[in-house]
Amino acid sequence: MGQYERGEWKVADYLIASKKCDLLSLEQLLHMGKLVVCISNLVHVLQRERGASNIFVGSGGTRFADQLPQRVEESCAMAEQFRACLEGIDTQTGCHPGSSRLFSGLAYVIQGLDELKRVRSDILSLRISPEAIIDGYSELIRGLLAVVFDAADSAADPDISRILVAMFHLMQGKELAGQERALGAAGFARGSFDNGQRERFRHLIESQERYFQIFATFANPESLALWQAITTEPCTAELERLRRVALAAADGRADTALSDTWYDESTRRIDLFKEVEDRLEAHLTTLCEQKIADARADLDSHCDQLQALAQQPTECGAFAIFLNSGDGDAEAGNDPGPYSTECASPQLGRSLIDLVQSQSVRLQAMSEELNEARTALTERKVIEKAKGLIMKHRQMSEEDAFRFMREVAMSQQRKLVDVASDTINMVELFKKTR
Amino acid sequence: MGQYERGEWKVADYLIASKKCDLLSLEQLLHMGKLVVCISNLVHVLQRERGASNIFVGSGGTRFADQLPQRVEESCAMAEQFRACLEGIDTQTGCHPGSSRLFSGLAYVIQGLDELKRVRSDILSLRISPEAIIDGYSELIRGLLAVVFDAADSAADPDISRILVAMFHLMQGKELAGQERALGAAGFARGSFDNGQRERFRHLIESQERYFQIFATFANPESLALWQAITTEPCTAELERLRRVALAAADGRADTALSDTWYDESTRRIDLFKEVEDRLEAHLTTLCEQKIADARADLDSHCDQLQALAQQPTECGAFAIFLNSGDGDAEAGNDPGPYSTECASPQLGRSLIDLVQSQSVRLQAMSEELNEARTALTERKVIEKAKGLIMKHRQMSEEDAFRFMREVAMSQQRKLVDVASDTINMVELFKKTR
Repeated sequence: MGQYERGEWKVADYLIASKKCDLLSLEQLLHMGKLVVCISNLVHVLQRERGASNIFVGSGGTRFADQLPQRVEESCAMAEQFRACLEGIDTQTGCHPGSSRLFSGLAYVIQGLDELKRVRSDILSLRISPEAIIDGYSELIRGLLAVVFDAADSAADPDISRILVAMFHLMQGKELAGQERALGAAGFARGSFDNGQRERFRHLIESQERYFQIFATFANPESLALWQAITTEPCTAELERLRRVALAAADGRADTALSDTWYDESTRRIDLFKEVEDRLEAHLTTLCEQKIADARADLDSHCDQLQALAQQPTECGAFAIFLNSGDGDAEAGNDPGPYSTECASPQLGRSLIDLVQSQSVRLQAMSEELNEARTALTERKVIEKAKGLIMKHRQMSEEDAFRFMREVAMSQQRKLVDVASDTINMVELFKKTR
Repeated sequence: MGQYERGEWKVADYLIASKKCDLLSLEQLLHMGKLVVCISNLVHVLQRERGASNIFVGSGGTRFADQLPQRVEESCAMAEQFRACLEGIDTQTGCHPGSSRLFSGLAYVIQGLDELKRVRSDILSLRISPEAIIDGYSELIRGLLAVVFDAADSAADPDISRILVAMFHLMQGKELAGQERALGAAGFARGSFDNGQRERFRHLIESQERYFQIFATFANPESLALWQAITTEPCTAELERLRRVALAAADGRADTALSDTWYDESTRRIDLFKEVEDRLEAHLTTLCEQKIADARADLDSHCDQLQALAQQPTECGAFAIFLNSGDGDAEAGNDPGPYSTECASPQLGRSLIDLVQSQSVRLQAMSEELNEARTALTERKVIEKAKGLIMKHRQMSEEDAFRFMREVAMSQQRKLVDVASDTINMVELFKKTR
């Protein structure tokens, strides 16, 4: 029991350690924020390259032959920035329980960037279908967005998590807008849309809206205002008109002359989404920096208060070694024993209790707010899991599985996430009763 | 673009980093497991001390005066073991986003251990009521169990998380059994139970069952079998008889001679719970060690496979620097460019893709299983949050708030967690419409 009188020092020690973890996790979030910016930029140019490649292949190599090299160059430049940003993420010291997914996700993405060389070579030699181009680029972008999703899911600060949740959903919505652009570009260039392509078109439009709604729920006011302004831009109205042309043509024919217009108007709208993304990113960086400054000030203030407490005169020696990480035997010969109250100066004890309790209350409140922000992500997880189960058990494609759930939800007038949840429960039940 | 050809090296690098994080997080779980063992032992002796203190104070200092010092000594010894175990948890290097809560929780607990000195001094001088004794010890134990809860909530391995979830619920149920023992001991020693005390009695019995049910859902078969054997022990039947006596006495009078029997039988039953806890802990340790061995073998096997891939002859120099963390400029003058496919040997690329995808699939499956294990914890979080809101908005005590929710649930024939969830939603709605 020789260390009993060091109790108060230990309390202060763990309290400071807890505050330092808060600071460290914010600093890590700032790094993740920078990575998210790089991902946002890389995804944007990959989306452009995908659209241009589609027009090139869709037109049998006659159109965009001049634009394509420029698009590829932009992508390579952004990929380099992304790689440079990764250098800042240390795989040695950055290793904590949550980072296993991050590193696995990065391995997936970097490998996808290497794969892209083959896809580009196939595009140049016209040995690839527009659908295969969309799938190739989209899979890489899906991997990049998964890193953003994990960042949002693992962020320990509720305000930052909210912004990352908004960011993920904006990027996801924008990606579907990008897929829509590529699909439309290929279709208009080819001069026709078959039933399957129109179905995919509809699905892309509806899913976009779903993601943008969640973005709107979590975005900061400035980003939201910028986003809302897009609806009054001419490109939005023009895009709606072209969507109608593509979807409503009775014989599936489309005017090939509209290909350029489609690509330009879609691009204009997508570039506006990118501006919202940039605004959101600027807010994320400011927020991280502000939070880090606050956390540092809070840590300093705690250190000062604990130092002041330690220097106040006490009735016993306990506080003399209060902030002193000595060998611990200093007071060993003077153990006041388990019944002694003389060491615990009520006034000082009270101040320390207040500090400990306020940290505990703060963490509890943060954890509850975090759960709220992550609910949007939980829904996606449930839907993704149910989709995977349907694909597996009913041998359906990803889109068919999603459509199946959506139709059940619509016919029963229930939320998609509830139908997904029931699906999972039913499969579990089926497993158990077998 | 000088580093492009290093792509494959990077993939291997991040894949290994991801595997290393898995291993590290298991090693941290083993440490947490040891801490949980110390907490389990400390809680057990604190529960005993609480019971003995209650009889001592309840009997006006006439009974257990001889036992009490021994109980206190046991607690001090276990507190020392707990402190020694903490020395193994480095507040510097162990700092990651999740550990802020752990350190804050430890600060709270260590401070509570210091506070205990005052409580003990009040017990010796009979300046404290039995209820205040229960509250004092119970608050410290609540803090200790919160550390176990956080350990269960932050464990990244689903199997270990399940055992920690079982452990938390067993400890929580056992703690309520301990509170019941203290309440009964004080009541029998005093010779009476008033209405409030009997109400609390009932609440403790019901809540115990609820926790034990969840324990049973997640426990390993050996622990569960040991637990089920308790129901056929004589102490269980005897305790049920004494519970009936305490609850059913029309005039609230109880035979003071039953105090010893009550204490002994409760203690026997609680000691049996402790044996189940020990069994569960042994399983936890074995599981952690097994998982660590597996993760290490998996990491070694990955390193070997990647090394073998690197040594296979390739058509270009990309694999020559595959596992070589050189300065990166080795091949800078020989950049194959974004369209080159010559460096990406399809066969080698495929093997690497398989390794990356299997890690990604494994992490996804783990994450889904984790969510399942944590659902039991989510429910408690929702109930705790709702309880807190009711206490705040209706100025109710913790027990009254809980009873209020339970009565609503019973009258509407719904699950407690659903009522709690509605309560939270209603308060949110109320906040927004104001």
